[in-house]
Amino acid sequence: MTHDGLLSPGAHRAAGTVDDEALVGALLRVEVAWLRALAAVGAVVRAHADRVADVAATWQVDLVRLAEDSEAAGNAVVPLVRGLREAVGGPAAEAVHRGLTSQDALDTALVLLSRDALVRVREDLAATAGSLAALAEKHRDTVMAGRTLTQYAVPVTFGLKAARWLAGALDACVQVEAVVTDLPVQCGGAAGTLALVGELTPDPVAAARAFADELALTWPGAPWHTNRAAITRIGSSLVTTCDALGVIAADVALLSRPEIAEVREGVVAGRGGSSTMPGKRNPVLSVLVRSAALQAPLLGAQLHLAAAQAVDERPDGAWHAEWPALRRLLELTVTAASQAAELTAGLEVDPAAMRERAEEATDVLLAERGDPGRVDDYLGASSQLVDAILARFRDSGTGRG
Amino acid sequence: MTHDGLLSPGAHRAAGTVDDEALVGALLRVEVAWLRALAAVGAVVRAHADRVADVAATWQVDLVRLAEDSEAAGNAVVPLVRGLREAVGGPAAEAVHRGLTSQDALDTALVLLSRDALVRVREDLAATAGSLAALAEKHRDTVMAGRTLTQYAVPVTFGLKAARWLAGALDACVQVEAVVTDLPVQCGGAAGTLALVGELTPDPVAAARAFADELALTWPGAPWHTNRAAITRIGSSLVTTCDALGVIAADVALLSRPEIAEVREGVVAGRGGSSTMPGKRNPVLSVLVRSAALQAPLLGAQLHLAAAQAVDERPDGAWHAEWPALRRLLELTVTAASQAAELTAGLEVDPAAMRERAEEATDVLLAERGDPGRVDDYLGASSQLVDAILARFRDSGTGRG
Amino acid sequence: MTHDGLLSPGAHRAAGTVDDEALVGALLRVEVAWLRALAAVGAVVRAHADRVADVAATWQVDLVRLAEDSEAAGNAVVPLVRGLREAVGGPAAEAVHRGLTSQDALDTALVLLSRDALVRVREDLAATAGSLAALAEKHRDTVMAGRTLTQYAVPVTFGLKAARWLAGALDACVQVEAVVTDLPVQCGGAAGTLALVGELTPDPVAAARAFADELALTWPGAPWHTNRAAITRIGSSLVTTCDALGVIAADVALLSRPEIAEVREGVVAGRGGSSTMPGKRNPVLSVLVRSAALQAPLLGAQLHLAAAQAVDERPDGAWHAEWPALRRLLELTVTAASQAAELTAGLEVDPAAMRERAEEATDVLLAERGDPGRVDDYLGASSQLVDAILARFRDSGTGRG
Amino acid sequence: MTHDGLLSPGAHRAAGTVDDEALVGALLRVEVAWLRALAAVGAVVRAHADRVADVAATWQVDLVRLAEDSEAAGNAVVPLVRGLREAVGGPAAEAVHRGLTSQDALDTALVLLSRDALVRVREDLAATAGSLAALAEKHRDTVMAGRTLTQYAVPVTFGLKAARWLAGALDACVQVEAVVTDLPVQCGGAAGTLALVGELTPDPVAAARAFADELALTWPGAPWHTNRAAITRIGSSLVTTCDALGVIAADVALLSRPEIAEVREGVVAGRGGSSTMPGKRNPVLSVLVRSAALQAPLLGAQLHLAAAQAVDERPDGAWHAEWPALRRLLELTVTAASQAAELTAGLEVDPAAMRERAEEATDVLLAERGDPGRVDDYLGASSQLVDAILARFRDSGTGRG
Repeated sequence: MTHDGLLSPGAHRAAGTVDDEALVGALLRVEVAWLRALAAVGAVVRAHADRVADVAATWQVDLVRLAEDSEAAGNAVVPLVRGLREAVGGPAAEAVHRGLTSQDALDTALVLLSRDALVRVREDLAATAGSLAALAEKHRDTVMAGRTLTQYAVPVTFGLKAARWLAGALDACVQVEAVVTDLPVQCGGAAGTLALVGELTPDPVAAARAFADELALTWPGAPWHTNRAAITRIGSSLVTTCDALGVIAADVALLSRPEIAEVREGVVAGRGGSSTMPGKRNPVLSVLVRSAALQAPLLGAQLHLAAAQAVDERPDGAWHAEWPALRRLLELTVTAASQAAELTAGLEVDPAAMRERAEEATDVLLAERGDPGRVDDYLGASSQLVDAILARFRDSGTGRG
Repeated sequence: MTHDGLLSPGAHRAAGTVDDEALVGALLRVEVAWLRALAAVGAVVRAHADRVADVAATWQVDLVRLAEDSEAAGNAVVPLVRGLREAVGGPAAEAVHRGLTSQDALDTALVLLSRDALVRVREDLAATAGSLAALAEKHRDTVMAGRTLTQYAVPVTFGLKAARWLAGALDACVQVEAVVTDLPVQCGGAAGTLALVGELTPDPVAAARAFADELALTWPGAPWHTNRAAITRIGSSLVTTCDALGVIAADVALLSRPEIAEVREGVVAGRGGSSTMPGKRNPVLSVLVRSAALQAPLLGAQLHLAAAQAVDERPDGAWHAEWPALRRLLELTVTAASQAAELTAGLEVDPAAMRERAEEATDVLLAERGDPGRVDDYLGASSQLVDAILARFRDSGTGRG
Repeated sequence: MTHDGLLSPGAHRAAGTVDDEALVGALLRVEVAWLRALAAVGAVVRAHADRVADVAATWQVDLVRLAEDSEAAGNAVVPLVRGLREAVGGPAAEAVHRGLTSQDALDTALVLLSRDALVRVREDLAATAGSLAALAEKHRDTVMAGRTLTQYAVPVTFGLKAARWLAGALDACVQVEAVVTDLPVQCGGAAGTLALVGELTPDPVAAARAFADELALTWPGAPWHTNRAAITRIGSSLVTTCDALGVIAADVALLSRPEIAEVREGVVAGRGGSSTMPGKRNPVLSVLVRSAALQAPLLGAQLHLAAAQAVDERPDGAWHAEWPALRRLLELTVTAASQAAELTAGLEVDPAAMRERAEEATDVLLAERGDPGRVDDYLGASSQLVDAILARFRDSGTGRG
Repeated sequence: MTHDGLLSPGAHRAAGTVDDEALVGALLRVEVAWLRALAAVGAVVRAHADRVADVAATWQVDLVRLAEDSEAAGNAVVPLVRGLREAVGGPAAEAVHRGLTSQDALDTALVLLSRDALVRVREDLAATAGSLAALAEKHRDTVMAGRTLTQYAVPVTFGLKAARWLAGALDACVQVEAVVTDLPVQCGGAAGTLALVGELTPDPVAAARAFADELALTWPGAPWHTNRAAITRIGSSLVTTCDALGVIAADVALLSRPEIAEVREGVVAGRGGSSTMPGKRNPVLSVLVRSAALQAPLLGAQLHLAAAQAVDERPDGAWHAEWPALRRLLELTVTAASQAAELTAGLEVDPAAMRERAEEATDVLLAERGDPGRVDDYLGASSQLVDAILARFRDSGTGRG
C-alpha cells in the first residue's frame, strides 16, 4: 500500500509495490542501469558505474524533502539526480543521468513498478483461475436458477457460472501476459533524439539497447515520450482484470444476500463485522472488489486522456496527469487480484439451496421450453461449455501445479 | 453519420456505418444467419431459412415505431423479431429467432457494425501511415526546434516528428488488426446454456459454430453475455486510435498557430472559414480530431464500467449502458480516422520557417551540449530513429501500394 | 429522441427536445432574436428583423446537407447562416448574424435546448416526488428488513425508504431549479469584445442585454466563450438527477427480484417481455433508469474536461467536444426522468411480503438491540424522519396540485 | 500531501489536510463530538464524554496496523473504535460510538476534511481573484491579438483576458462558498433509523442535531447514507475550481511559449529547471495546474458513479469507491488552488510584446471590420466588460483587504 491506506482497505496487500520507496528504488535502479549501459558501450568508465551503484545501494533519501523539491522542476527526477550526484561526488558524479532526460528515468521506473505489479496480478489471476476451474468441475451438475435482468430465466449450473467467471479471468490473463512480456525502456534524451548520448558514443541507439538489456525490458526502436500506447496498454490490462473480477464479486455479493443465500464468502475470524451489529457477516471481499471495479475504468480513461494530449516533444501537463492514475490503478488491481484469489479460494457453495430454489421455480424456469419436466433436463450445453472453458484453462497453462 | 449530425461535424464520413438502418440491417443479417446455421445442422428446414432471408431482404421497417416499441422489452430485438415473424408468416415464422435470446442478436449485430467500422478505421490508419512515412522520409533532415513543456529544448527534425506520429499510428493499427480478425459471435440462448437450441439439435454448440461461420466471426467457445472483454477490447483499439490521431492533431494545431507557422492544413476551398471573419483559415480537421481525442477515453471507460457490472446470467442495466457508447465511439473513430487521413495527406510543411526559427534559437537549443555550433550537428540519432520506425512501417505491410 | 433511437430505449420520451430539427429551430430563434435586439437598440431597422423572422418561420433546411457542410467550418452555424442569408435576400440578408460569432449562436441555442429539457426534467421530478411522498406517507408503518452491504441490518419501514428516495429527488429538483432560472445568453462576437456590434451601436452591451431579454435568458455581464461553468452547471444538475433516480431504480430492481419480491413495477401490457421466455416480466423501467445512471457521470465529466481545456479567446477542439455530450446527457435525463415518474407512479408494494420477511429475520434484525422483541418496536426515528422529508417536500412546492 | 507525494509535485501544499493522520484526527473528533451530543441530550453522562475526549487527545494510533485491520470490516472505523474503546477502558468505553454506524463516523470525518480543504481552496481562490482583478485593471488598455481556434481573430486586451479568468474564479468561489457553508453531519445508525440512539434517548433526532452543532455542521433532516448529493456537490465545486484554474494555466502555458512570449511565470530560484538542459525555464506551475485540470473531471465522475449505485440502506461497494476519489480530489484542488494563487500573483506580462504582435497582425485582426485602422480602435466593449467583471468581484467581497 501507499502510506495513506485508511481509505483503501486491503491495500496492504500491495505493500511495497508502488509507494515512494519503491519508486525511488526503481529510479535508482534505472540510473545505475543507464551507467552500466553506457559502460557497456564504452561511453563511461566502468568504475564510475560501479561507484554510483555502490552509493545508490545504501543511499538514504529523505522522501518528504524530495517530494517538496519535486515541484520546482515538475518532477522528482531532477532533485533526486542532484542529490545522487552530491552523494556520489568526484568524477563519477558527472556521469550520473548523463544523456537522459527526466522522462527517460521516470517512465522507465514506472514501467519497472508496473512490471512488479503485473507479475503479482498475473500470479493472483492464476490462483483465481485455478480455484474457479475447480469450482466449475465440481459443480458441473449443480443446478441453479438462471437469472437475467434480475428475474428467473432458465436453469443453469453453478459450474457454468464458475466457468464463465473463469473465462473472464483467462481473458484478463492473456492481456496481462501480453503486456508484461513486452514492456519498453524509455530512452530519448532531452527531446527524443539521443543527441547528448551521441556526444558520448558514436552509436547512441546501442546504448539504449544496452539500457533495455540491463533492466530486462525491450527497446521499442524509438523513444515514446509522446506516444503513450505502452502506458495505456498496461492500463487496459489492469482495467480488464478489474472488470473480470468485478463480475465475480457482483455475483457473489448478490448470491450471498440472505434471501438468496446460495454462496457465501469463506469464514475468516473477525472479517465482515459491523461497528454496531454483532453477528453481522458482510461479504467484505466482494464489496471491496466491486468497489475496485467501479474505480478502475476511470483510472484507465485518465491514462488515455493524457495520451491523447501529448503535444510537442514532451508534453506540458498531460504526462504529469498519468502518474497518480497509473500508480493508483496498479495498487488497486494488485489489491483486488489478491482479494479475489482469496475470495474464490474460500468460496462456500450451497448446492442444496440452489437445487431447492430451482425446483421451487421449475414452472418459471421451464416456461421457455413449453413442456413440464425437471430442471435438470433443460441444461442444454452447460456441461459442454464448462468443458470448453476448462480446456482453454488447461491449454493456457495458467493454473498452478 | 447517425441522423442527427449537426453536433458532430464530419460524421457524414461514417454515414451508413452505425445508424439505425445499419443496425436493423445487421440484426436481420444475424437472424437469417442463425436460421441458415440451424438449417446447416439440420435443426430447421432450409426452405424456412430461405423464406426468412427473402422476406428480410425487402422488408421495410418503420424505425421510429420500432424505437418506440423497444422500450417495452428494453431492447429493439423483441419488437423486430415480432415484426419479422409477422412479415414472414406461416410455419417459417415460428423458426425465426428460435433458440436465441435478444442479447445474442444484438451483441452479434453490434459486432458486425464494429467490424465494418474497424475495417474503415484500419484503411484510414493505413493511409495516414503512408502519408506519415512519406513525410518522415522527405523531412529526415528538416531541422526544427524541439519543444518540451512548451519551451525550446534541443533540435529535432520534422522527419522524426512525423516518424513518431507514424509509430503511434502503427501501434493503433496493431490493436485494430488484432481485434478485427478475432471478433466473436454471441450465441447462448436465454441464460447462456443453449438449452432451447438443444431441443432443436443434439449438438447445440455445432449450431453456434455454424452461426459464427455464416457471419465470418469466431465462436469463442462459450457465450459472453456477462464477460464483455470482447467489447472492451474493441473499445480499447478505438480509443488507442483516437489517442494516436489526437497527438498528431494537437501538434498540427500548435505548429499552425500564426506565431509558429511551421505547418498548415492543406487548402480546401471553403474550409476553415469563420462566420464573421473573412480570410480566417482555422485548422478545422485538427480541431475536430482533437475534439474526438478528448471524447474517446470516456466512451471507452463507459464500456469498461458496463463490463464490470455484468451480474447474473444477463445484466440489469449494464448491458444497456454499453450500446450508445459503443455506437458513438465507432462513429467518432471512423470520422476521426478519415479526417486524419485527409489531414496528413494534405499537410503543408514549411522547412524554411523551421530552419529559420531553429537557427535563431541556436543558443538555447544547444545549451545542453555546452558547445556553440550548428543545430544540424546536434541531431543525435534522429535519422537512425526515423529509419527504425520506417522499417517497422514497411515490415507491418500497413502502407498502401 | 434523436433519430437513431434503437439503442436508447425510451428515448422517444425526449422526442423533439434535442434532435437536429430542434437545434435548427433554436438556432433560427437565436438569429431572429439577435436581429430584434439590434432593432431594439436601433442598430438595424425593424423591417429587416421582421423580414428575417418571416423567412425563418417557414424556411426548410436540408439537415443532411447542413450536417455535411458543418465540417468545413467546424460547426453548423456557418452554413446555416449562409443559407439563411440566401433565403432572406436583399438588404436584410446582410443584417443576419451581424456582430455575432458562431459560438454566440450555438451556445445560446444549446442553452435554449437545455432549458426545454430541464423544464421537462423538473416536471417529471415533481411528479416523481409527488408519487414518492404518497408512498412515504402510506407506508410510514410498513416494516421491512433493513439491508446494508447486502446483509440484514436492523428493521426499517418502506415509508422511510420512499422518503429517502424523495430526499434525493428533492436535492435534484433544487439543482435543476437553480439552473433553469439562471441560464445565460452567449454574446461576444469574434473574440468576446463585441467589437463588430460596437460598429453598429454605441452601447454593444445594451444589445447583448436586449438579446437576452428576447430569449428570456440572463445576460451574465460578459461573454463566456472560455468560461464554461454555465454548461458544467447544467450538466451537474442533470447528472445529480440521474444519480437520484438511479438509486430508486437500483432498489426497485433489487426488491423486485423473485427471491425478495417486495415491490414490483406496475403492469403495463406488453412491457417487460422476453424474446424467448413467455411470461417473463423484467423490471424494464428500472433497468433502463439504472442504465442511464451508469452513463450520466461520464457525460458530465466530458463537459468538465472540455471546460478545463478552453484556451485562447475561443478554444481549439474543447468546445466541440462539449456538444455531443451535452445533447446526449439532456436526452438521457429527460428520458430517465420520464421513466422514473412512470415507475414511481405505478410501483406496486407488497407490505405483507415485507412484514413476513422482517418477522422471519427478527433475531438478526434485533441483534444490535440485544433484546428480543418485535421488529415494530425497533424503528427508532423512522416516522420522524419521514415527517421531516415530507415537510421539506411540502415546503419546496415541488408536488403537483 | 499524503505521504506518497513523489508523483504529485506540489502536493506538500496540501500537507496535513487529507492524509491518514488528518483522517484519524477527524474520526476521533467525530467520536468525541458524538459523545458530547449524547451528553447534551442526557443520553450518556458527561464524564464519559470527557474521559473519551481526554484519551482521544493523546492516543497514538498505529496507522499501518490500522490500515491493515481496515480490510476485515471493509472500513477503518471498526478497528479504530475497537482500539479507542480499549484505550478508554471502564464504563466510558461502552459509550464510545454507541448508536452510530461506521458510515456515520466516516462520512462525517470526510466532511470535516472536506471543509478544511474547501476553506483553503476558498482562500486561494480569493487570492487568485485579487491578483486577477489587479491585472485586469492594470492591463485594461493593453492591446493584444485575440486568438480563436488557434488563429488570429480580432484585437482584445490583456485586461479582458485577465477579467475572463477572474470571472471563472468567481464562478468557482460561488460554488465553493455555497458548499462550505452547508455541510451536513451524517447520523443514522445501522440502517438510517437512529434506532439504537432511540434506546438511549427519547428524541434521537435531537441527538443528531446536537452532534451537528458540536461540529458546526448542519443536520439535513435525515441521514444520507444512500443519497450522496452532499458528496457530489463537494466534488462539483472542486472540479469547477480546477476547470477555472485550468483555463488560466492553459493560457499562460501557451502565451509563455518562446514564439509568443507575451507572459511568463514569475522567476523563482531553482524553479522550472531541467534535468539536462541548463537555463531552461519551464512554466512549471502552469504545467502542474493544467495537469490537475486534466485529472479533476474523472475524480468528480467517480463520485457521481458511486452516488448512482447506492443501493439498500447502505451500499455494497459504491460507498467504498467514493473515498479515494474524494481524498484525491481534495488534495489535488488544494494544491492547484495554491499553485494558481502563486502563479497569478507572480505573473509577468509583457505589454510591449503584445502590442508589437498586434500591430504586426493588424490587417488580419481588423479583417472583420473591413476598414483599415488601428487595433486600439477596434476593441468594442472590452473595457466595459472588464468593468462589469471587476464590479462583480468587488460586490462578491472575494478579494482580500
